[in-house]
Amino acid sequence: MPSRHTDPDIMHSMRKTVSFAIKVKDKSTSARTGQIKTPHGIVRTPNFCAVGTQGSVKALDGQDLQNIGLDIVLANTYHLHIRPGEKVVQKLGGLAKMMNWNGPTMTDSGGFQVFSLGIALEQGVGKLLKEESTQRKPRLNKITQEGVYFQSHLDGAKLFLSPEKSIEIQEALGADLIIAFDDLESPKYSYKETLQSLELTEKWLVRSKNAQKRHDQLLYGVTHGGKYEDLRIKSAKFNDLHFDAIALGGAHLDKKNMYDVVRWTVENVADAKPKHMLGVGEIDDIFNIVELGIDTFDCVIPTRVARMGWFFVNPPEGNKKNRFRKDISKSLNSASKDPLDKKCTCMVCLSYTKGYIHHLFKARELLVYRLLTYHNLFFYKTLMEQIRESIEQRRFLKLKDKWLS
Amino acid sequence: MPSRHTDPDIMHSMRKTVSFAIKVKDKSTSARTGQIKTPHGIVRTPNFCAVGTQGSVKALDGQDLQNIGLDIVLANTYHLHIRPGEKVVQKLGGLAKMMNWNGPTMTDSGGFQVFSLGIALEQGVGKLLKEESTQRKPRLNKITQEGVYFQSHLDGAKLFLSPEKSIEIQEALGADLIIAFDDLESPKYSYKETLQSLELTEKWLVRSKNAQKRHDQLLYGVTHGGKYEDLRIKSAKFNDLHFDAIALGGAHLDKKNMYDVVRWTVENVADAKPKHMLGVGEIDDIFNIVELGIDTFDCVIPTRVARMGWFFVNPPEGNKKNRFRKDISKSLNSASKDPLDKKCTCMVCLSYTKGYIHHLFKARELLVYRLLTYHNLFFYKTLMEQIRESIEQRRFLKLKDKWLS
Repeated sequence: MPSRHTDPDIMHSMRKTVSFAIKVKDKSTSARTGQIKTPHGIVRTPNFCAVGTQGSVKALDGQDLQNIGLDIVLANTYHLHIRPGEKVVQKLGGLAKMMNWNGPTMTDSGGFQVFSLGIALEQGVGKLLKEESTQRKPRLNKITQEGVYFQSHLDGAKLFLSPEKSIEIQEALGADLIIAFDDLESPKYSYKETLQSLELTEKWLVRSKNAQKRHDQLLYGVTHGGKYEDLRIKSAKFNDLHFDAIALGGAHLDKKNMYDVVRWTVENVADAKPKHMLGVGEIDDIFNIVELGIDTFDCVIPTRVARMGWFFVNPPEGNKKNRFRKDISKSLNSASKDPLDKKCTCMVCLSYTKGYIHHLFKARELLVYRLLTYHNLFFYKTLMEQIRESIEQRRFLKLKDKWLS
Repeated sequence: MPSRHTDPDIMHSMRKTVSFAIKVKDKSTSARTGQIKTPHGIVRTPNFCAVGTQGSVKALDGQDLQNIGLDIVLANTYHLHIRPGEKVVQKLGGLAKMMNWNGPTMTDSGGFQVFSLGIALEQGVGKLLKEESTQRKPRLNKITQEGVYFQSHLDGAKLFLSPEKSIEIQEALGADLIIAFDDLESPKYSYKETLQSLELTEKWLVRSKNAQKRHDQLLYGVTHGGKYEDLRIKSAKFNDLHFDAIALGGAHLDKKNMYDVVRWTVENVADAKPKHMLGVGEIDDIFNIVELGIDTFDCVIPTRVARMGWFFVNPPEGNKKNRFRKDISKSLNSASKDPLDKKCTCMVCLSYTKGYIHHLFKARELLVYRLLTYHNLFFYKTLMEQIRESIEQRRFLKLKDKWLS
């Protein structure tokens, strides 16, 4: 296994060491393939970031991530700041090395957790608008122009996050791709409220950029503006003016308007810049959003649903209706000698039967979480591989049609 | 990695395919090295069976077990009978193949669980006498001459276990080494009660032997007799008369008398027969009992304490006083760049810092259970390797002294 590790100790290099290049553009859609070169290796795009919130992709070790063939892992600034703290991560060699992953990494800004602990509680909105809850709770943070005061979800400790602080933390964590600090709008905001939030985000974006000291990390701006076309366009243009890379924020919270939001944004950002879609997703969304010109995604779906017993399957067994997933806990699996997916060549499908994995799940054996997570991430890895290949072979829409029709 | 797999589908072979041979005998003690040859590979003795109660060594997959370098895994008849059922295990290729381990395996008889659900509840005795509880609960089973009626600990279903049933289940599970069905005495039994239990065990042992249909599995007898020398000698002689391999039962429940019991037993069983010590154990016990002539051990200690955050360390950091273990949750580990054990060459120690593992444990990340379990079993594997080497190099007592003094 060749190490992706190039130089983990490179710190405060004055050389810009992350770059993006488009390789092939699809002729009939906005889909494209490309490469993000980082000090820790190359991310082939379109691609999917496995989520390792606390510096660990649930139940998998660094070698597993390499064996799966992933290109990049995303971790959360808020969580790592609270525990173990960015100084510890830095001392342990930085995010990638600490995890024995040593490949490219990305961190978010903590903005999403500000949302989760604030307006999301107050208005009862979850990660997706459809999961809206009638429950209203007091917010656990206070947003000012300066930044966000909040309490640790672990021990109630008083904390403060600002653009400057988020960048400082992300520089210590040492990911290759980092994200500017933003104020996430509620999908329930009025036009006026959304505009106010966007104006705060714009100030924080500029402050994030000005706070950057390391130049070996690619800083992504974040676009906002809710479901309002003019605000989304304003935000896209603002980000395009200030950043070399763009992340789409908040769009996944309002699935009804998501594709429009992506379109409005992508059309107003320079083609040559890498574009990341935060918090997506589902297989159909990935196809549709790659089609609109997005390069990278991150989402907890493949890892989270694994822990609930769901495993992904290729077409035709998997389809849009079953969301390409099946439930290992079903009794029809109990004595099956088949692998999870007959079309899959991952370590799990080559070595274990559905009957055994069903037993492990029913018996709550710890091993089951690793096996299902491994398979699901291998499935996403292979999907992104197929998508890249289809774009380069001028048959992206055919592949999409095969999967989603 | 060469496969240990020789022929998993061998069923009802009339050839006796498990054999034991002593290789080197220590001159100053009863310790010896040897080999148990099985259809799934060789078990070098003295050795330690990793415990995979429900057909899974907690958090590890079959490849992990091979990478650690284990020789044998033990699973529990009672648990696998209840879930997923021996017929399912058989359909999935048998215990070893189902787990993607494919190496030698052993199953116990279910006798210990009969004890756990019966007299252990009634008299408040746990796995070890020192863990004695003042709590008394009604027993969940009923013992007759015929066998044991009990309720499933999962769903209360009424079940029956007998010598014939235990052997039938163990033949379906397909382990290489199997154990006769016994009645486990409470360490609190009087002489008379112990004798009564022993007499029942003797009947059940003969019935177990008579029930055996497969001849490619080595059937171990089980010796009992509590702490009473004459009963232990009677049981050893009885087992020696009927069986080619002997397991020591109940001795680990009463640590005060354990070494005496091992001595009384070993002295009354033919030297050439392989001897297994059930439920042991601790590092010092392994040294002392290898010295008395025992060939194999099984115990949940290395796997169970891993899940509580304990990891084993070699001398001099590990010693008899700290039981060769340390606690990863201690804050002094929080930013440590050291491996768990500087002397260890396992995958975990080569790839991860104590600081990272401490973080994973504090954050309850699933990965931590795999990493600590892997390390602890590698530690036991290496210990047994060192013990075998020391016996063959005529320095067993020196090694023991180095570890235990």
